[in-house]
Amino acid sequence: MAYKLIEGGGVTTPKGFLAGACYVGVKSRKSEKPDVAIIYSEQPASCAAMFTTNKFCAAPVILDREILKKGKARAVVINSGNANAATGTQGIEDAKRVETEAEKLLNLGEDEVFVCSTGVIGQKLPVEKVLEGVRRVVPELSADKGSEAAWAIMTTDLVRKETAMELELSGGTVRVGAMAKGSGMIHPNMGTMLCGITTDCAIDGALLQDMLRQVVTKTFNRITVDGDTSTNDTCVVLANGLAGNPAITGPGEDYDIFFAALRHVCEYEAKMIASDGEGAGRLITCTVMGAETEEQAEQMAKAVVRSPLVKCAVFGTDANWGRVLCAIGYSGAQFDPKDVEVKFLSRAGELLVCAGGQGVAFDEALAKRVLSEDEVVIQVTLTSGSATCSCWGCDLTYDYVKINGDYRS
Amino acid sequence: MAYKLIEGGGVTTPKGFLAGACYVGVKSRKSEKPDVAIIYSEQPASCAAMFTTNKFCAAPVILDREILKKGKARAVVINSGNANAATGTQGIEDAKRVETEAEKLLNLGEDEVFVCSTGVIGQKLPVEKVLEGVRRVVPELSADKGSEAAWAIMTTDLVRKETAMELELSGGTVRVGAMAKGSGMIHPNMGTMLCGITTDCAIDGALLQDMLRQVVTKTFNRITVDGDTSTNDTCVVLANGLAGNPAITGPGEDYDIFFAALRHVCEYEAKMIASDGEGAGRLITCTVMGAETEEQAEQMAKAVVRSPLVKCAVFGTDANWGRVLCAIGYSGAQFDPKDVEVKFLSRAGELLVCAGGQGVAFDEALAKRVLSEDEVVIQVTLTSGSATCSCWGCDLTYDYVKINGDYRS
Repeated sequence: MAYKLIEGGGVTTPKGFLAGACYVGVKSRKSEKPDVAIIYSEQPASCAAMFTTNKFCAAPVILDREILKKGKARAVVINSGNANAATGTQGIEDAKRVETEAEKLLNLGEDEVFVCSTGVIGQKLPVEKVLEGVRRVVPELSADKGSEAAWAIMTTDLVRKETAMELELSGGTVRVGAMAKGSGMIHPNMGTMLCGITTDCAIDGALLQDMLRQVVTKTFNRITVDGDTSTNDTCVVLANGLAGNPAITGPGEDYDIFFAALRHVCEYEAKMIASDGEGAGRLITCTVMGAETEEQAEQMAKAVVRSPLVKCAVFGTDANWGRVLCAIGYSGAQFDPKDVEVKFLSRAGELLVCAGGQGVAFDEALAKRVLSEDEVVIQVTLTSGSATCSCWGCDLTYDYVKINGDYRS
Repeated sequence: MAYKLIEGGGVTTPKGFLAGACYVGVKSRKSEKPDVAIIYSEQPASCAAMFTTNKFCAAPVILDREILKKGKARAVVINSGNANAATGTQGIEDAKRVETEAEKLLNLGEDEVFVCSTGVIGQKLPVEKVLEGVRRVVPELSADKGSEAAWAIMTTDLVRKETAMELELSGGTVRVGAMAKGSGMIHPNMGTMLCGITTDCAIDGALLQDMLRQVVTKTFNRITVDGDTSTNDTCVVLANGLAGNPAITGPGEDYDIFFAALRHVCEYEAKMIASDGEGAGRLITCTVMGAETEEQAEQMAKAVVRSPLVKCAVFGTDANWGRVLCAIGYSGAQFDPKDVEVKFLSRAGELLVCAGGQGVAFDEALAKRVLSEDEVVIQVTLTSGSATCSCWGCDLTYDYVKINGDYRS
């Protein structure tokens, strides 16, 4: 593929993007991790965004849907520590105040700033604190602070989720950068996840929106941590065209390269979210092959990575493949149980546990080794067709229960 | 209602039913808990049964579907410790051998014995042990051993799940008794649960089957422990008519009374299963009221009791109602978020936490007390209509992870 990873890259890797963050006390923890972040494009940018399907969507999501209609935006303001969800008209007013303040300080027009929030649901946004954050971050925006912004949006996340890549289009080199957060309440369609993507590629806004919709379906909508779909999920792309390439306006080689790169970035961020799932020790990938359709493969793969029993088995390095069969059996997908083969794979090796829908003898010691790795693949092979799908999740551990038994305090 | 509970009753409470159990070593644990059980009707009985919808249904389920077609049966043989699922044609032969042996020893005709298995998936049934169990239990069947049978079908269950009641029909008194098991892999449609119901009521078999289908939908299909639907779920009713009542053959008062009693028994068993969920400390009931349709109420209530985040919050006695909103928001049901009221209730009191879709101030100390009880009700009230539905689940605890991280060993 005509793209390469940029080590240490993030949202400020593409030309003309600045970022910044600070701590203002929206997060109640004593750690003083930053809790307000801004991504800013120095030039006008096309934009695209995807949002949660939860009926209780948060106030900023309601606001952002309006901003998206314009098709142009310049910045994203994100606070962590409070979701501004289930906060009624007050919540929408608060989000609007944040947007307006950012627009004023950044000398932008109306409806040019997306607002995102993540954290506890149902508590009034401490809007004055967030406004103070905006006032402190704006003067210090910098091309060096992408990573700080990526840090500021974390809640129960343990690692920053940044990436960037460079791709060669017919008209020159363009860059794509991204940051994301998400750890609990993660499930299609999009968990409590926020993802900001920047690119200096010139690309038509409507085309970008359509591309993002397709890509999110195949990446963020294929991860699950706990089956809970959050009220706040948002993925925003800003494309400012500073790379100087002839704008991508329709199908063609450039379209294909950019699409592949966007998918790669989103898949990377999605897997980062799954592997950093609350309390998670391991990334679980379920790949279903040989299905009649991609939809059926996806139904099965999702059921496996969602199953608490499969997740617990992986936590306990227990090659309990019966639970994998059980999950694909109730997934709703059509297949012949007599055709199913199941393998566990990781860096430590490959283990066939089920063939023809029945168990086969396997080496328990090898099973332990395979399942003890950080990344475990459950590969389900059917003989119905040639469709394939991978979905991602994580193991279910004591720490998940601990983290979520007492999140508010 | 025209029925009353019989203290200490079970499957041998109705006239003409015997039961028995013994330990033969299908269970690998050292506890020597019994692992083969039989329920037997001294007279021919109408029968009805409902089975798992999982595509990987276990061998005994395949067999039982055939037996059900006859509409008459006399006994149920159940082993715990091995599910005889994903065991191919060998599994079906093994189940058939168990059936045939029981028919021979009980002097019954072909296809008169249901066979059920519960336990680990994907391991060959130790059929010789189960046959030995049948040979040992048959000579010792007794009207005193209902409770022993209820004990023998337990796997990770901590408590026996028995009940019985007496009801007055126009033609006399009849009795209904039941035993069930189920703790993990519990989710609509029916978790790893087995339920045997006996009655001395005379009732038409086809009518009974239709009644059971309706009742299971409103009871066992409304519980969830972990969202996993097992390969083995079976609920069997045997009705031997020994009460001597004129047979119920269609709608009428007797039909209504018997229906209500059957629903009561199944709801009782379902709630027993939910409250004894693997690792569970508390029974969670979610009641949705004021919905437009029962289906919508059910969708919402199921989403709440299934949500790992809600389950963890209850474990942590954390009144994190935002997660309840989140769950009904992604449930797929239609409603106006501005209309939603949420209360937590238990013996310790009642707590309004959300009104008009927004949080209301509440007493955190009272919240802890309300959520610390064994049974917690989450009551969601809408203003869309008058439909109501309750679903049942349990909290998600460290012990669930522990139990399922290492089940096979």
